[in-house]
Amino acid sequence: MHKLLVLYGKPKDPDHFRSYYRDVHVPLAMALPGLRSGSYGFDVAGLGGESPYFCVFEASFDSAQALDEALASEQGQKTVADVPNYATGGVTIVRFDVA
Amino acid sequence: MHKLLVLYGKPKDPDHFRSYYRDVHVPLAMALPGLRSGSYGFDVAGLGGESPYFCVFEASFDSAQALDEALASEQGQKTVADVPNYATGGVTIVRFDVA
Repeated sequence: MHKLLVLYGKPKDPDHFRSYYRDVHVPLAMALPGLRSGSYGFDVAGLGGESPYFCVFEASFDSAQALDEALASEQGQKTVADVPNYATGGVTIVRFDVA
Repeated sequence: MHKLLVLYGKPKDPDHFRSYYRDVHVPLAMALPGLRSGSYGFDVAGLGGESPYFCVFEASFDSAQALDEALASEQGQKTVADVPNYATGGVTIVRFDVA
């Protein structure tokens, strides 16, 4: 299994982020071809320190190749192109094979 | 559902981290009371930039309270106390309710 984590810094307008993310971006991401599961949360809190993130999205794919194909697809390009519309606090995206 | 993410920076000795983590730390974490699922991966890669992390662990609990109880338990204290034994590249720990 291959995982994608999208880690969002605190946006300028958290309320706008929340509603745009829920209503527009998550439906785009959840329609990625090959997506096995996806979930997200707001108001990310730190443990033993402050949280550098406001929102986390995580998704599972069968393999690194399946994620590559999802990102290269039309839906993937639409999803990636939408990120600047709300992610005003920056975004860190990482991926890894589950051990 | 409540999620815990443990994000490790690149350690001084990645091979030691790998073996210690797999053989000692993960068994401690997987025995946390109330843990619903847990998974991890090494060699975390960036997407559209460098990855600030080397290893990611993620875990699910029924609720924030269940995670609090897990951390306060004897097993939780043992698990947390073990982190400095291998996490020489720093660690960022965050938690959030799944929306």
